[in-house]
Amino acid sequence: MLFTISKRYLLNALTTVSRAISPNSPVPALSCIKIEATSNQIIFTAADATLSIKTVIDKSEPDSNLYITEQGGLVLERIIVEMVKRIEGEIVTIESIDGDFAKVSGATSEYKVPGVRFSDYPAIEFDEGFIQLQFDASTLISMINQTTFAVSKTELRPVLTGVNFHLSNHQLILTASDSYRLARKIVEVDSDEIFTITIPARSLNEMVKNISENGTVTMGISDKRVQFKLGGTLVQTRLLEGAFPETERLIPNTFTQELLLDKYTILKSLDICNVIKSNGMSLVKLCANSNIVTLSSYNKDFGSSSYDPVNAKDYTGEPIEISFSGDYAKEAINSLEGSEVLIKFCGETRPFIICDPKDDTLIQLVLPIRTYN
Amino acid sequence: MLFTISKRYLLNALTTVSRAISPNSPVPALSCIKIEATSNQIIFTAADATLSIKTVIDKSEPDSNLYITEQGGLVLERIIVEMVKRIEGEIVTIESIDGDFAKVSGATSEYKVPGVRFSDYPAIEFDEGFIQLQFDASTLISMINQTTFAVSKTELRPVLTGVNFHLSNHQLILTASDSYRLARKIVEVDSDEIFTITIPARSLNEMVKNISENGTVTMGISDKRVQFKLGGTLVQTRLLEGAFPETERLIPNTFTQELLLDKYTILKSLDICNVIKSNGMSLVKLCANSNIVTLSSYNKDFGSSSYDPVNAKDYTGEPIEISFSGDYAKEAINSLEGSEVLIKFCGETRPFIICDPKDDTLIQLVLPIRTYN
Repeated sequence: MLFTISKRYLLNALTTVSRAISPNSPVPALSCIKIEATSNQIIFTAADATLSIKTVIDKSEPDSNLYITEQGGLVLERIIVEMVKRIEGEIVTIESIDGDFAKVSGATSEYKVPGVRFSDYPAIEFDEGFIQLQFDASTLISMINQTTFAVSKTELRPVLTGVNFHLSNHQLILTASDSYRLARKIVEVDSDEIFTITIPARSLNEMVKNISENGTVTMGISDKRVQFKLGGTLVQTRLLEGAFPETERLIPNTFTQELLLDKYTILKSLDICNVIKSNGMSLVKLCANSNIVTLSSYNKDFGSSSYDPVNAKDYTGEPIEISFSGDYAKEAINSLEGSEVLIKFCGETRPFIICDPKDDTLIQLVLPIRTYN
Repeated sequence: MLFTISKRYLLNALTTVSRAISPNSPVPALSCIKIEATSNQIIFTAADATLSIKTVIDKSEPDSNLYITEQGGLVLERIIVEMVKRIEGEIVTIESIDGDFAKVSGATSEYKVPGVRFSDYPAIEFDEGFIQLQFDASTLISMINQTTFAVSKTELRPVLTGVNFHLSNHQLILTASDSYRLARKIVEVDSDEIFTITIPARSLNEMVKNISENGTVTMGISDKRVQFKLGGTLVQTRLLEGAFPETERLIPNTFTQELLLDKYTILKSLDICNVIKSNGMSLVKLCANSNIVTLSSYNKDFGSSSYDPVNAKDYTGEPIEISFSGDYAKEAINSLEGSEVLIKFCGETRPFIICDPKDDTLIQLVLPIRTYN
C-alpha cells in the first residue's frame, strides 16, 4: 500500500472513524483503524461491538490530492491520529513497511506506525437496510439533541440507554426515558413503513458529531442494525434488544394548571436553586399562585436557596406546590427552541409537561419528587 | 454579623482563600471559609495542613461598598463560593442566622449557607517572619514558574516536592529537582541574610495564582513557615523538613560539546518525537554532527518517529548521540525566555545543561537515559 493524500482530508477521516473506538476493547484489532487503498479510493474503518464508522476518500475529490501508487490494506494503531496531527506540510504519504507497520511521512518528518495483521480485523458488513428515510442534517441534529439527554445513564434496563424510533402513519416518534423523565419528539416523514427500533444514545451522539448542518442524511433500517449515510461517511450501529416500555399512556392529556414563563427568567431562577444538591441532585420546589411563581431548593446539610417571585406570563388553575429535580427541569427547558416555556400540571403528585407553546412536536415530561418538608 | 459588600470584591476574596482548601480534609472546619467582620474590615481565611490564605477587605476601599452593621464571625461551607457566583445584583448581604448559618442575599435571591461553630476553626497564626525580602511581582512569578515544574511528583522523598530557596552573598538560589532533572534560578537580592528553606511547590503555585503582574510582594521567612504578602492578601505555608540534597556538585562546569539552536525549531522537532511514549515517557535520541542535528524517538510497540536534520546555529565539539526524556527537554526549553537555546554536553552518559545563551541566571539540567538500541 502506498498513497499520498491531503493532510486535512486524512486527519478528518481518521478523526471521524476513531470516534467508534472504545478504550480497552477486548479485541486488539478493534483498538486500531483499518485503512484500505483500492484503485481509486481510500477506505477508513473503525468499530467497537456496537458502533462502526466507515469513511471514504475518492480520487475524484480534487482537494484530496489523493494519488494511489500501490493498492493494499493496513490495520494501524490509533496513535496514527496523534501522529498525523503533528506532522508538518500539507501532503502526507502512507506506505506499508515491515509487514504490519506503516511509514507516515510529511515534508520533513516521518513516523513508523505499528499495526496488527490485516486479516485479524473482524469483518464488518455495512448494511444499507430495507427501509430508507431521508432527513435534513439540521432536523436530524435537533431531534437527536432534544431526546438523547433523557436516556438512562445506568445499565439497569439496557433498552432505556437508547432512543426509541417508532414510525407509523407517516409520523416518526422519538422517545427517550430514564423512568423519571421522558422526552418525545415527533417528525413527519414521507414513508408508509411501520417500524419500532431502539438506537443506543452513544451511537446517536457520535453520529451527530460527524454531521455538518447542511446536507442530507439517509437512515437505513434493517432488523439488527441502523445505518446513517452522510456524504462519504457511514455510521452504523447495532440496535438495542428488548421491548421499549409503552410510554404513550404515561403522557397526560388533560391538565389542571398551566403556567407560561419567559425561558430566560425560569432558567436563571433554576440556576440559583441548582447550586444546592442532595446526593448529587438538586431538589427544587415550585410554588405558583395566580401569576406569582417562586422557586426554592433545600438541603439540611448544604443550605437552601430561594428566589424572589417572578411574574408568569400567564397562569390558569388552582395554586400548586410541586417539587422536582432542578437539573432535569433545566435540561428539559434547554431543549426547547423558543423563548417561552409552557408547564402543564395535572396535580402535585403526577408527572408534568414542559413544552414550547408554539411547538407541539416536542414534549418533555418530568416526574415530581415527594418531599416531607 | 451583618454586612453588605460589592459582589465582585466578595467573590474575589472567597476565590482567593478557597485555593488553600484541600478536598477531604480530616478536620471538617478546614473544608470551610472563616469570615470575620470587625469594625472596619472583613477578614477571610482558609487553610489546610500546609497552606493558609488570609485576605482582608477594608472599608477604606471605595469600590468595596462595604458597610458593616454588626461585627462577628462565621465559618461557612465552601459552597458559598458557588452561591455568590450565581447571586444576581452588584451588592451582596451576609448575615448570621440560626447559630452557625448565614443568609447570603442579592437583589432578588437569597441562600441559607451552612457552617460549623466559629470556635471549631483551628487558630492560625500568621507569622511575618524575621527575614523580609521584597520582589517585583513579575520577577517572583517568573522565578517560580521557571523552577516548580521540575519538582518530584511523588512523595518518595518529600523534600524534593518543594523548591529550595538558598540565600547567601546577596544571591537567592532557587533549586528544584526530581533526581532526573534540575532547575536552578539565581536572583540578586538586597539582603545580607543567610538561609536555606524548602517551600512546597503546591504552595508556590497557589500563591502565584493570587499575584497580578504589577506590584510588590513581601516574603517573610521564619523557622517553620514562609509568608507572602501581596496587597491585602497573605499566603502562608509550612516549610518542608529535611535537608535538601547538595546539588551544586552535580552541575558541570566544563563541557565537551555546545549546541546552539533556534527555540521554535527544536520545540517543533520535540513535539513530533514526543508522540511516541514508553511507559508514559517519550525517549528522544539527539544526534549532532557538526551543525547537523537529528531528533528521533522509538518504542517497539508504539512505533517510532524521526525528523529531518535541522541546522544548528552553532556547534562545537565531537559528534554526539544522547537519549533523554523528550517531555523533560520540552519543559526545560519552555522555561527559557529568549528565542535561542544553548545545550551544553559533557559526554553521552553525563547530565547536560539547557539554557538561554543570553541569560546566565537560569539553568536546566537533564539526565540522559541509557538505551540499548
